[in-house]
Amino acid sequence: MLTPETITSAANPLLKEVRRAVARGSLTAEGWCVAETFHLLEEALGSGSEVKTVLAAESARAAVEAQGRRLAGVRVVLLPDALFAGIAATETSQGVMALVQPREWKLAQLFHGAALVVVLDGLQDPGNAGAIVRAAEAFGATGILFLKGTVSPHNPKTLRASAGSLFRVPFVHGVASATAIATLRQNGIKLFVAMPAAARLQEPLRGSTTSADSLWATDLSGRCGLIIGSEAHGVGTEWRSAAAPVSIPTVGVESLNAAIAASILLYEARRQRMLRP
Amino acid sequence: MLTPETITSAANPLLKEVRRAVARGSLTAEGWCVAETFHLLEEALGSGSEVKTVLAAESARAAVEAQGRRLAGVRVVLLPDALFAGIAATETSQGVMALVQPREWKLAQLFHGAALVVVLDGLQDPGNAGAIVRAAEAFGATGILFLKGTVSPHNPKTLRASAGSLFRVPFVHGVASATAIATLRQNGIKLFVAMPAAARLQEPLRGSTTSADSLWATDLSGRCGLIIGSEAHGVGTEWRSAAAPVSIPTVGVESLNAAIAASILLYEARRQRMLRP
Repeated sequence: MLTPETITSAANPLLKEVRRAVARGSLTAEGWCVAETFHLLEEALGSGSEVKTVLAAESARAAVEAQGRRLAGVRVVLLPDALFAGIAATETSQGVMALVQPREWKLAQLFHGAALVVVLDGLQDPGNAGAIVRAAEAFGATGILFLKGTVSPHNPKTLRASAGSLFRVPFVHGVASATAIATLRQNGIKLFVAMPAAARLQEPLRGSTTSADSLWATDLSGRCGLIIGSEAHGVGTEWRSAAAPVSIPTVGVESLNAAIAASILLYEARRQRMLRP
Repeated sequence: MLTPETITSAANPLLKEVRRAVARGSLTAEGWCVAETFHLLEEALGSGSEVKTVLAAESARAAVEAQGRRLAGVRVVLLPDALFAGIAATETSQGVMALVQPREWKLAQLFHGAALVVVLDGLQDPGNAGAIVRAAEAFGATGILFLKGTVSPHNPKTLRASAGSLFRVPFVHGVASATAIATLRQNGIKLFVAMPAAARLQEPLRGSTTSADSLWATDLSGRCGLIIGSEAHGVGTEWRSAAAPVSIPTVGVESLNAAIAASILLYEARRQRMLRP
């Protein structure tokens, strides 16, 4: 039996804090991530992450109570629907929002076994970043590295686009490129940087003597890292000299959406690994 | 030398018509599609589509004039910036919007040569639909079929997400499933329906005696059609019995984003076709 508290003022400090985190795309001051929708609440509970607080609109009270014992020990706060609408980031929030203590991983935990690491270098769109995390889990990636200057994995929009994969796939964020390159190399991770097909044809890479290989001619079955650049500027120069270029052979278009390109690289790595076990 | 007209009233019939098309996600009453950004204007001009009118914010006047002779014969209308902001669908419109006569294709034009047809069955998100069209062009698809009940290819958001591919890839929309199935079969197109990996394991398909094959074990090198269902409900039952199920082998997630799944299928078809010419 839940015994929810009730908040009725928009000036309540907890609500102000949640609005701030949603607006900034960050954690709350307590270090909690904001997970909207029942799907994400269930993914959080199922992943073993610690759910600190559940905020629910009055109209969603019955659906929250139906969670029963799964919410034992969790602070549950009910809000009038209009007040909930003021903190929700989407119209599809279903009247529920969980504040979740994110798991923390060390860099070394991203490389275990047949390492397949995704490195995001400057990607800005949280929808793209979340979709990449979802595809990374789907194709067996062992970890995700959000470099300094990349959208936050704790942006509520990143979390939502990941459909909960961010509760499960090990990730680290805020790492500088130099540190990341050194660590990946020390761990025997071969690095590949995704280049648009146009770049493959037009300009040889700085620091590289060869042009990019076609994706299906590139061996991704060993321990490797896939570097995905920003939508506007690609990857930083330090990665261009540290990694082998690889391109997805395309015709007629300048580039693919970053999430789609990353997902195709991950699919190809998975395909090769399943065929050469 | 351009001799632009000027509109200064929000009640102008042309502006009302553009606002209506953007809001409804449709063509204007004259049958023109709305293409925002300079990139789409250039894609339209480069594709040979007929650009009927260019609407430009005062602040974008110089950039529009820089198009020079390419806009010969095109009606150019200048608007105060505030008025332009009222018709723009995005904040990244760059102050320019083209009204373009869309090319029209017949169903038979989608199947030429080594046919690779994408069939969208009920997909609702214009961003997903546009991204699929972009990937379809990139991987050499010969045509796209938007079935009845699917988001419009003329929705300005679909066009924008396609990054201009909709000006080049042949497409037909509003076709009923029964008509499409009959026509595709008559043209010797083998049909494949993308199924979530979860469905592959849990429930055999109605009308099918086998479970879905893994994508890389499925021969997509012949004339074929890839059926992509809606984000929420997958494909209609008539397609389940008309097409062979194929699934992208994944772990840990229930499904992939529809645009990502479609793009991976298209990539795999392209890979097989390049290896077996």
